[in-house]
Amino acid sequence: MSQFKLHPQLLADCHYLGKLTHCHVLLNKNSLIPWFILVPETDTTDLLELPSAQREQVMDECTGISRWIKQYYRISKINFGAIGNIVPQLHLHVIGRVENDPCWPKPAWGNLDKHEDYSTDEIKFLRQKLVSDYRLAVDDDPGC
Amino acid sequence: MSQFKLHPQLLADCHYLGKLTHCHVLLNKNSLIPWFILVPETDTTDLLELPSAQREQVMDECTGISRWIKQYYRISKINFGAIGNIVPQLHLHVIGRVENDPCWPKPAWGNLDKHEDYSTDEIKFLRQKLVSDYRLAVDDDPGC
Repeated sequence: MSQFKLHPQLLADCHYLGKLTHCHVLLNKNSLIPWFILVPETDTTDLLELPSAQREQVMDECTGISRWIKQYYRISKINFGAIGNIVPQLHLHVIGRVENDPCWPKPAWGNLDKHEDYSTDEIKFLRQKLVSDYRLAVDDDPGC
Repeated sequence: MSQFKLHPQLLADCHYLGKLTHCHVLLNKNSLIPWFILVPETDTTDLLELPSAQREQVMDECTGISRWIKQYYRISKINFGAIGNIVPQLHLHVIGRVENDPCWPKPAWGNLDKHEDYSTDEIKFLRQKLVSDYRLAVDDDPGC
Protein backbone atom coordinates (compact mmCIF):
# COMPACT_ATOMS: atom_id res chain seq x y z
CA MET A 1 0.00 0.00 0.00
CA SER A 2 2.95 2.37 -0.53
CA GLN A 3 0.91 4.11 -3.20
CA PHE A 4 -2.00 4.79 -0.84
CA LYS A 5 -3.58 8.20 -1.35
CA LEU A 6 -6.45 9.66 0.59
CA HIS A 7 -9.51 10.30 -1.55
CA PRO A 8 -9.60 13.96 -2.64
CA GLN A 9 -13.21 14.34 -1.48
CA LEU A 10 -12.22 13.33 2.06
CA LEU A 11 -9.38 15.87 1.96
CA ALA A 12 -11.81 18.51 0.70
CA ASP A 13 -14.39 17.80 3.42
CA CYS A 14 -11.97 17.34 6.31
CA HIS A 15 -8.87 18.65 8.03
CA TYR A 16 -6.04 16.12 8.04
CA LEU A 17 -4.85 15.53 11.60
CA GLY A 18 -2.32 12.72 11.33
CA LYS A 19 -1.90 8.98 11.42
CA LEU A 20 -2.29 6.26 14.01
CA THR A 21 -0.64 2.88 13.44
CA HIS A 22 -3.33 1.73 11.02
CA CYS A 23 -5.60 4.65 10.19
CA HIS A 24 -5.30 8.22 9.03
CA VAL A 25 -7.32 10.56 11.22
CA LEU A 26 -9.42 13.31 9.66
CA LEU A 27 -11.65 15.94 11.21
CA ASN A 28 -14.86 16.96 9.45
CA LYS A 29 -14.62 20.69 8.70
CA ASN A 30 -17.97 21.38 10.36
CA SER A 31 -17.14 22.13 13.97
CA LEU A 32 -20.74 21.97 15.21
CA ILE A 33 -20.29 18.36 16.33
CA PRO A 34 -17.08 16.39 17.02
CA TRP A 35 -16.94 14.36 13.82
CA PHE A 36 -13.80 12.30 13.25
CA ILE A 37 -13.11 10.04 10.29
CA LEU A 38 -10.60 7.18 10.30
CA VAL A 39 -9.19 5.90 7.02
CA PRO A 40 -7.28 2.60 7.01
CA GLU A 41 -4.78 2.01 4.24
CA THR A 42 -6.66 -0.56 2.21
CA ASP A 43 -8.29 -1.01 -1.17
CA THR A 44 -11.22 -2.83 0.44
CA THR A 45 -14.27 -0.58 0.33
CA ASP A 46 -16.56 -2.25 2.92
CA LEU A 47 -15.60 -2.51 6.60
CA LEU A 48 -17.20 -5.96 6.79
CA GLU A 49 -14.97 -7.21 3.97
CA LEU A 50 -11.69 -6.48 5.74
CA PRO A 51 -9.74 -9.55 6.88
CA SER A 52 -10.78 -10.04 10.51
CA ALA A 53 -7.33 -9.26 11.98
CA GLN A 54 -7.18 -5.97 10.06
CA ARG A 55 -10.80 -5.21 10.92
CA GLU A 56 -10.01 -5.57 14.61
CA GLN A 57 -6.94 -3.32 14.34
CA VAL A 58 -9.13 -0.69 12.69
CA MET A 59 -11.92 -1.16 15.25
CA ASP A 60 -9.39 -0.85 18.08
CA GLU A 61 -8.27 2.53 16.73
CA CYS A 62 -11.89 3.63 16.29
CA THR A 63 -12.45 2.57 19.91
CA GLY A 64 -9.48 4.64 21.04
CA ILE A 65 -10.73 7.72 19.20
CA SER A 66 -14.27 7.10 20.50
CA ARG A 67 -13.04 7.02 24.10
CA TRP A 68 -10.90 10.08 23.54
CA ILE A 69 -13.89 12.00 22.11
CA LYS A 70 -16.02 10.98 25.11
CA GLN A 71 -13.35 12.10 27.56
CA TYR A 72 -12.27 15.30 25.81
CA TYR A 73 -15.76 16.57 24.99
CA ARG A 74 -17.33 15.02 28.11
CA ILE A 75 -20.07 13.27 26.18
CA SER A 76 -21.45 9.77 26.45
CA LYS A 77 -22.73 8.88 22.98
CA ILE A 78 -20.86 7.91 19.82
CA ASN A 79 -22.40 7.28 16.41
CA PHE A 80 -20.32 4.91 14.32
CA GLY A 81 -20.76 4.22 10.64
CA ALA A 82 -19.16 2.94 7.46
CA ILE A 83 -21.21 4.09 4.51
CA GLY A 84 -19.17 5.05 1.46
CA ASN A 85 -21.95 5.51 -1.07
CA ILE A 86 -20.38 8.72 -2.40
CA VAL A 87 -16.69 8.30 -1.47
CA PRO A 88 -15.82 4.65 -2.12
CA GLN A 89 -12.54 4.69 -0.17
CA LEU A 90 -13.20 2.94 3.15
CA HIS A 91 -13.64 5.53 5.91
CA LEU A 92 -15.12 5.12 9.37
CA HIS A 93 -17.19 7.84 10.97
CA VAL A 94 -16.73 8.25 14.73
CA ILE A 95 -19.08 11.04 15.78
CA GLY A 96 -19.69 12.42 19.24
CA ARG A 97 -23.32 13.22 19.91
CA VAL A 98 -25.20 15.06 22.64
CA GLU A 99 -28.90 15.57 23.09
CA ASN A 100 -28.83 19.26 22.30
CA ASP A 101 -26.53 19.16 19.27
CA PRO A 102 -27.74 20.75 16.01
CA CYS A 103 -29.06 17.55 14.45
CA TRP A 104 -30.03 15.43 17.46
CA PRO A 105 -31.50 12.79 17.37
CA LYS A 106 -31.05 12.40 13.61
CA PRO A 107 -27.91 10.79 12.21
CA ALA A 108 -25.35 13.47 11.33
CA TRP A 109 -25.11 12.50 7.66
CA GLY A 110 -27.12 14.99 5.62
CA ASN A 111 -28.76 16.53 8.68
CA LEU A 112 -26.26 19.20 9.74
CA ASP A 113 -27.93 22.19 8.11
CA LYS A 114 -25.61 24.77 9.62
CA HIS A 115 -21.84 25.00 9.32
CA GLU A 116 -19.20 26.53 11.50
CA ASP A 117 -15.50 26.36 10.66
CA TYR A 118 -12.77 25.42 13.07
CA SER A 119 -10.16 28.13 13.65
CA THR A 120 -6.56 27.31 12.76
CA ASP A 121 -5.75 27.35 16.47
CA GLU A 122 -8.55 24.90 17.27
CA ILE A 123 -7.30 22.44 14.65
CA LYS A 124 -3.73 22.80 15.91
CA PHE A 125 -4.88 22.25 19.49
CA LEU A 126 -6.95 19.15 18.64
CA ARG A 127 -4.03 17.70 16.67
CA GLN A 128 -1.66 18.27 19.57
CA LYS A 129 -4.12 16.75 22.04
CA LEU A 130 -4.29 13.61 19.89
CA VAL A 131 -0.50 13.54 19.59
CA SER A 132 -0.08 13.74 23.36
CA ASP A 133 -3.10 11.65 24.39
CA TYR A 134 -3.22 9.08 21.67
CA ARG A 135 0.10 8.62 19.87
CA LEU A 136 -1.03 10.40 16.74
CA ALA A 137 1.82 10.84 14.28
CA VAL A 138 1.70 14.17 12.51
CA ASP A 139 2.51 14.04 8.84
CA ASP A 140 2.66 17.12 6.69
CA ASP A 141 1.71 15.25 3.54
CA PRO A 142 -2.05 14.69 3.68
CA GLY A 143 -1.99 12.68 0.47
CA CYS A 144 0.30 10.00 1.87
CA MET B 1 -28.30 -11.59 30.43
CA SER B 2 -31.13 -14.09 31.03
CA GLN B 3 -33.47 -11.14 31.40
CA PHE B 4 -32.56 -9.70 28.01
CA LYS B 5 -35.53 -8.23 26.16
CA LEU B 6 -35.50 -6.66 22.73
CA HIS B 7 -36.45 -2.98 22.78
CA PRO B 8 -40.15 -2.58 21.90
CA GLN B 9 -39.35 0.05 19.28
CA LEU B 10 -37.11 -2.41 17.42
CA LEU B 11 -39.89 -5.00 17.55
CA ALA B 12 -42.35 -2.40 16.26
CA ASP B 13 -40.11 -1.33 13.38
CA CYS B 14 -38.87 -4.79 12.39
CA HIS B 15 -39.84 -8.39 11.77
CA TYR B 16 -38.09 -10.76 14.16
CA LEU B 17 -36.23 -13.45 12.18
CA GLY B 18 -34.30 -15.43 14.78
CA LYS B 19 -31.02 -15.64 16.60
CA LEU B 20 -27.44 -16.38 15.68
CA THR B 21 -24.99 -17.40 18.38
CA HIS B 22 -24.53 -13.86 19.65
CA CYS B 23 -27.07 -11.60 17.96
CA HIS B 24 -30.79 -11.50 17.35
CA VAL B 25 -31.57 -10.83 13.70
CA LEU B 26 -34.31 -8.39 12.75
CA LEU B 27 -35.58 -7.26 9.36
CA ASN B 28 -36.68 -3.66 8.89
CA LYS B 29 -40.35 -3.71 7.84
CA ASN B 30 -39.66 -1.54 4.79
CA SER B 31 -38.92 -3.98 1.99
CA LEU B 32 -37.61 -1.35 -0.43
CA ILE B 33 -34.02 -2.09 0.58
CA PRO B 34 -32.54 -5.17 2.31
CA TRP B 35 -32.13 -3.70 5.80
CA PHE B 36 -31.11 -6.12 8.53
CA ILE B 37 -30.50 -5.25 12.17
CA LEU B 38 -28.39 -7.34 14.56
CA VAL B 39 -28.92 -7.01 18.30
CA PRO B 40 -26.34 -8.54 20.66
CA GLU B 41 -27.45 -9.44 24.17
CA THR B 42 -25.70 -6.70 26.11
CA ASP B 43 -26.47 -3.68 28.23
CA THR B 44 -23.65 -1.73 26.57
CA THR B 45 -25.17 0.91 24.29
CA ASP B 46 -22.17 1.82 22.08
CA LEU B 47 -20.53 -0.72 19.75
CA LEU B 48 -17.11 0.77 20.50
CA GLU B 49 -17.61 0.16 24.24
CA LEU B 50 -18.07 -3.60 23.93
CA PRO B 51 -15.21 -5.71 25.30
CA SER B 52 -13.03 -6.47 22.29
CA ALA B 53 -13.71 -10.23 22.30
CA GLN B 54 -17.46 -9.63 22.30
CA ARG B 55 -17.11 -6.88 19.69
CA GLU B 56 -15.28 -9.35 17.43
CA GLN B 57 -18.02 -11.96 17.85
CA VAL B 58 -20.65 -9.37 16.97
CA MET B 59 -18.65 -8.05 14.01
CA ASP B 60 -18.14 -11.62 12.76
CA GLU B 61 -21.92 -12.14 12.73
CA CYS B 62 -22.45 -8.79 11.00
CA THR B 63 -19.84 -9.91 8.45
CA GLY B 64 -21.72 -13.16 7.89
CA ILE B 65 -25.01 -11.34 7.36
CA SER B 66 -23.29 -8.79 5.12
CA ARG B 67 -21.89 -11.55 2.88
CA TRP B 68 -25.22 -13.33 2.84
CA ILE B 69 -26.99 -10.12 1.77
CA LYS B 70 -24.44 -9.57 -1.00
CA GLN B 71 -24.84 -13.11 -2.27
CA TYR B 72 -28.61 -13.42 -1.91
CA TYR B 73 -29.50 -10.01 -3.38
CA ARG B 74 -26.50 -10.00 -5.77
CA ILE B 75 -25.32 -6.59 -4.63
CA SER B 76 -21.85 -5.31 -3.82
CA LYS B 77 -22.33 -2.53 -1.27
CA ILE B 78 -23.17 -2.68 2.43
CA ASN B 79 -23.79 0.29 4.70
CA PHE B 80 -22.95 -0.46 8.31
CA GLY B 81 -23.86 1.65 11.29
CA ALA B 82 -24.36 1.76 15.04
CA ILE B 83 -26.30 4.89 15.91
CA GLY B 84 -28.82 4.43 18.72
CA ASN B 85 -29.82 8.05 19.28
CA ILE B 86 -33.51 7.09 19.49
CA VAL B 87 -33.39 3.43 20.55
CA PRO B 88 -30.58 3.15 23.11
CA GLN B 89 -30.35 -0.67 23.00
CA LEU B 90 -27.26 -1.54 20.93
CA HIS B 91 -28.29 -2.55 17.42
CA LEU B 92 -26.18 -2.81 14.29
CA HIS B 93 -27.54 -1.85 10.90
CA VAL B 94 -26.37 -4.01 7.99
CA ILE B 95 -27.98 -2.56 4.89
CA GLY B 96 -27.61 -3.68 1.30
CA ARG B 97 -27.40 -0.81 -1.15
CA VAL B 98 -27.54 -0.50 -4.92
CA GLU B 99 -27.14 2.55 -7.10
CA ASN B 100 -30.76 2.67 -8.16
CA ASP B 101 -32.38 2.04 -4.77
CA PRO B 102 -34.99 4.54 -3.50
CA CYS B 103 -32.58 6.59 -1.38
CA TRP B 104 -29.23 6.17 -3.15
CA PRO B 105 -26.68 7.65 -2.50
CA LYS B 106 -28.03 8.98 0.79
CA PRO B 107 -27.76 6.91 3.96
CA ALA B 108 -30.95 4.93 4.52
CA TRP B 109 -31.71 6.46 7.92
CA GLY B 110 -34.45 9.06 7.48
CA ASN B 111 -34.22 9.03 3.70
CA LEU B 112 -36.56 6.19 2.72
CA ASP B 113 -39.62 8.27 1.90
CA LYS B 114 -41.65 5.39 0.53
CA HIS B 115 -42.65 2.18 2.27
CA GLU B 116 -43.52 -1.24 1.00
CA ASP B 117 -44.38 -4.12 3.32
CA TYR B 118 -42.98 -7.61 3.06
CA SER B 119 -45.59 -10.29 2.48
CA THR B 120 -45.87 -13.05 5.09
CA ASP B 121 -44.45 -15.48 2.54
CA GLU B 122 -41.45 -13.25 1.86
CA ILE B 123 -40.62 -13.02 5.57
CA LYS B 124 -41.02 -16.79 5.95
CA PHE B 125 -38.79 -17.38 2.94
CA LEU B 126 -36.05 -15.02 4.14
CA ARG B 127 -36.12 -16.62 7.60
CA GLN B 128 -35.80 -20.08 6.09
CA LYS B 129 -32.95 -18.97 3.83
CA LEU B 130 -31.08 -17.67 6.88
CA VAL B 131 -31.81 -20.88 8.76
CA SER B 132 -30.43 -23.00 5.92
CA ASP B 133 -27.61 -20.70 4.80
CA TYR B 134 -26.48 -19.19 8.05
CA ARG B 135 -27.42 -21.31 11.08
CA LEU B 136 -30.15 -18.94 12.20
CA ALA B 137 -32.09 -20.35 15.12
CA VAL B 138 -35.77 -19.61 14.91
CA ASP B 139 -37.38 -18.59 18.17
CA ASP B 140 -41.08 -17.92 18.47
CA ASP B 141 -40.64 -15.51 21.38
CA PRO B 142 -39.42 -12.23 19.90
CA GLY B 143 -39.03 -10.69 23.34
CA CYS B 144 -36.51 -13.25 24.50
